[in-house]
Amino acid sequence: MDREAKSNHITWHAGEIAHRDRQRLRGHKGVTVWLTGLPSSGKSTIARELEKRLFDTGVCAYVLDGDNVRHRLNRDLGFSPEDRTENIRRIGEVAALFTDAGIVCITAFISPYRKDRAAAREAVGEDAFVEVYCSCSLAECEKRDPKGLYKKARAGEIPEFTGISAPYEEPLSPAIRLETDRLSLDKEVDLIVSHLTKSGFLQKES
Amino acid sequence: MDREAKSNHITWHAGEIAHRDRQRLRGHKGVTVWLTGLPSSGKSTIARELEKRLFDTGVCAYVLDGDNVRHRLNRDLGFSPEDRTENIRRIGEVAALFTDAGIVCITAFISPYRKDRAAAREAVGEDAFVEVYCSCSLAECEKRDPKGLYKKARAGEIPEFTGISAPYEEPLSPAIRLETDRLSLDKEVDLIVSHLTKSGFLQKES
Repeated sequence: MDREAKSNHITWHAGEIAHRDRQRLRGHKGVTVWLTGLPSSGKSTIARELEKRLFDTGVCAYVLDGDNVRHRLNRDLGFSPEDRTENIRRIGEVAALFTDAGIVCITAFISPYRKDRAAAREAVGEDAFVEVYCSCSLAECEKRDPKGLYKKARAGEIPEFTGISAPYEEPLSPAIRLETDRLSLDKEVDLIVSHLTKSGFLQKES
Repeated sequence: MDREAKSNHITWHAGEIAHRDRQRLRGHKGVTVWLTGLPSSGKSTIARELEKRLFDTGVCAYVLDGDNVRHRLNRDLGFSPEDRTENIRRIGEVAALFTDAGIVCITAFISPYRKDRAAAREAVGEDAFVEVYCSCSLAECEKRDPKGLYKKARAGEIPEFTGISAPYEEPLSPAIRLETDRLSLDKEVDLIVSHLTKSGFLQKES
């Protein structure tokens, strides 16, 4: 068989599967739900509950968080401003791949810098990027402190800790702002699902 | 509402969705189909055709290749041995995420070093990693040379070009060996789909 002809043939019928086709298979669009906020503001808890809720309704959802990214793909990176930027750059690119694959990708990272979040938005694509600000007072985050990290940071044992010794830049116009120090987890997830539905990400294609 | 109680609750019902549940939703398991071979040995063409074939039967499949990874996630990397290793390390970790998400992840990279492919296998997990060797003579690859890269490499215009000025280490025991200089594209894809089916990756859970 003539390989050249085969290649031409492949080029012709377009190797890439169209987004519309992926959407038809899954019944929903690819989208990145980007959670941002201080340590202990509730990001991972919300991400896992949202993933579960979507999964229960047949939606392909997947969480990227510290557990599966920081210790693996990005294990070569620390917490300097440069490494944080590279951390978020790579996560943005991975989220872009998941979104392109038609998955609801939920990311749960502090992502403290506006410019890094803007870069992630650009990587994923403006139309498929939903920024969710987990707004919680520093006092409340310190009170929760499930892993005792704030305590260690106050004692100077963890350098460059966001909220204590490293900055957090609040989103200026997030798609969703969750006051996580007063809302219940169910309500938080309701608000995100409602937004995704209204925005057409979860609707079946007719 | 008591946040502490909420957190405990979440920990209790386990944020992670079990692989078995993901499989039940999709009707297939997550797996990485890792194509390796010389430049122009047919990796990307096979990857795209396999993706299309699986997609047409309702399987969530997604290709990682030079187009969506080299120019984006790994755009900071070149072709030195160290950068090639880091390139494949990151791709292995991303493939591990897709596999964990229950997707059939198809990777199409030269991945010339045995140790790098072994690391990718370890990242994804032995049981979910299917190495496919696209075996093709250098002479045939050079004859195809759709982008004229071999020609440039021979002229010394591209340094560290696999097959010409950089090594390719053949897999010692790939799951599948495709003689891409004599098989048709349909047959190549048939062989992979058949292997995935026999190995239980594409079977519906009963």
